[in-house]
Amino acid sequence: SSDSTPIRATLFPGDGIGPEIADSVKQVFKAADVPIEWEEHYVGDQIDPRTQSFLTWESLESVRRNGVGLKGPMATPIGKGHRSLNLTLRKELNLYANVRPCYSLPGYKTRYDDVNLITIRENTEGEYSGLEHQVVRGVVESLKIITRQASLRVAEYAFHYAKTHGRERVSAIHKANIMQKTDGLFLKCCREVAEKYPEIVYEEVVIDNCCMMLVKNPALFDVLVMPNLYGDIISDLCAGLIGGLGLTPSCNIGEGGIALAEAVHGSAPDIAGKNLANPTALLLSSVTMLRHLEFHGKADQIQNAILSTIAEGKYRTADLGGSSSTTDFTKAICDHL
Amino acid sequence: SSDSTPIRATLFPGDGIGPEIADSVKQVFKAADVPIEWEEHYVGDQIDPRTQSFLTWESLESVRRNGVGLKGPMATPIGKGHRSLNLTLRKELNLYANVRPCYSLPGYKTRYDDVNLITIRENTEGEYSGLEHQVVRGVVESLKIITRQASLRVAEYAFHYAKTHGRERVSAIHKANIMQKTDGLFLKCCREVAEKYPEIVYEEVVIDNCCMMLVKNPALFDVLVMPNLYGDIISDLCAGLIGGLGLTPSCNIGEGGIALAEAVHGSAPDIAGKNLANPTALLLSSVTMLRHLEFHGKADQIQNAILSTIAEGKYRTADLGGSSSTTDFTKAICDHL
Ligand SMILES: CC(C)[C@H](C(=O)O)[C@@H](O)C(=O)O
Ligand SMILES: CC(C)[C@H](C(=O)O)[C@@H](O)C(=O)O
Repeated sequence: SSDSTPIRATLFPGDGIGPEIADSVKQVFKAADVPIEWEEHYVGDQIDPRTQSFLTWESLESVRRNGVGLKGPMATPIGKGHRSLNLTLRKELNLYANVRPCYSLPGYKTRYDDVNLITIRENTEGEYSGLEHQVVRGVVESLKIITRQASLRVAEYAFHYAKTHGRERVSAIHKANIMQKTDGLFLKCCREVAEKYPEIVYEEVVIDNCCMMLVKNPALFDVLVMPNLYGDIISDLCAGLIGGLGLTPSCNIGEGGIALAEAVHGSAPDIAGKNLANPTALLLSSVTMLRHLEFHGKADQIQNAILSTIAEGKYRTADLGGSSSTTDFTKAICDHL
Repeated sequence: SSDSTPIRATLFPGDGIGPEIADSVKQVFKAADVPIEWEEHYVGDQIDPRTQSFLTWESLESVRRNGVGLKGPMATPIGKGHRSLNLTLRKELNLYANVRPCYSLPGYKTRYDDVNLITIRENTEGEYSGLEHQVVRGVVESLKIITRQASLRVAEYAFHYAKTHGRERVSAIHKANIMQKTDGLFLKCCREVAEKYPEIVYEEVVIDNCCMMLVKNPALFDVLVMPNLYGDIISDLCAGLIGGLGLTPSCNIGEGGIALAEAVHGSAPDIAGKNLANPTALLLSSVTMLRHLEFHGKADQIQNAILSTIAEGKYRTADLGGSSSTTDFTKAICDHL
């Protein structure tokens, strides 16, 4: 595709601060003349029997049809008889890989200035099987499921990502010294795929050691691939290194090439509607969506505008120590385009 | 007990650098006039059928009889038909809680200077059940087991520890939003125990969020209690914040009051026998053993001598950027006593 073909993309503004940060993306895309038309979908206020959740069937159909989407934070309503919105999306759209680029933002100081890594998380199985039961009173068990199919699929995605993004190394993160069968199978699949990519360095790192190395020297890592729960943990750890979930993009890849980019932070109901939210994570996520569409020109342009605005430091939202509103920060980004 | 009653304690020097760092402890204890007699046990060179591992029955009996022990690194020999040495010790001695104090060392600079927390890890069940099997070709599962008994036991230990060590808060780390039954039971047990300790603040933190908070601001935490695998991950992450496993003590608590202190770093075969190893983790572990025996006078004295030696910086081993030998560093500590 080129930067001028018009494309339809699904937009889930989500709850809480969702609509405000989604507005920010719409503004920036308009200012950058991105040829995308949004199909907006909101979470319903009752359970749709076809999805068993508050997500409407139409909204899922929209993502399937468009192949790309962007999602703000969704707070799962409390109560029984329905599934978590995030988990429903992953399941229904078979979003098998969660990709989170994590890099130090120039000019935004944390304890680390040398982070530049990508976590790729298997997103459909593992500890998230949902299979749990009580064996006898006071004894419960959860099943962790690892399959060859899902492991090969995410490993393949990770190596392909490394190769096509100029990355040099893939580290498989595991605890196969304890879970020899499950994590052992995951590693076996990674090794099989690694053989097809002799130009990419492959290594295996035990998760406890990985976390220690990450906090000591994150520059040791490049692309990390891992089962579901380890990915959940390590991607948040990495986000913490550069400032938090408000700054890190995320993109979910599904079978058939679907890409659903999302801000993984919460819906921050306390500041919702007050024009105070930081739209950076959703904006950077929208950039990963553009890259997935191979709109690299627009992606670079928008990413540079976001990073320059943060680096200059004149317009920053309160979470970054500034006092700008969401709209002023957004306007500053548009002015940088 | 008082600081003058002679006590027998089991010592497993372990493999690789183990004997050198164990020597360092012996020297320091001698210099500090600690009334302890060591019963030394080495890992056998064949499988003892009574332990199904290279650990001898006599060595386990020694810990059971003495109630206290200190353990250097043990490299599990590769091969089939026997169990990991560390896991065998935990199992055979029912070492249900792994306690790791983690604090920034004055004068030894890392990216963090404000770490002062204790991780308390359930050490007998969870993801370490050893129960795994292949369901069909290409599909494997591991069982995570959580019991009310083990959860209450470690929660009780954590709150008691907090209370008796002047700590203000206990955070239970979990992923009960996903593993509602297993981690849910763990939390339920923590809540029950928390009610008995109204003077201790109790909170629950999801593991991914916990890791993010730890790398952003570890001063937010005080005592953390959690299931086995989370403890494995978080204790290593915390060690990384202050410089690594070479600097962090660890103590395992078993039923009936057994305490087995251990250095959790590896046996570093590459530098074994070269008088280059850093004995700090084993020395600080020996201090936790002394505290368990309520030899607080000796414990303070030795801990201060270790910390002052590191703080002064004149004698440091290579891993800390110095060029001292193990014996010179040890001598410097003795001189500080
Ligand atoms: C909200 C929760 C179910 C989710 C997860 O555990 O996957 C979140 O932590 C994430 O990383 O998207
Ligand atoms: C060596 C390994 C089995 C062990 C564990 O996973 O418990 C280690 O990481 C530890 O923390 O003591």
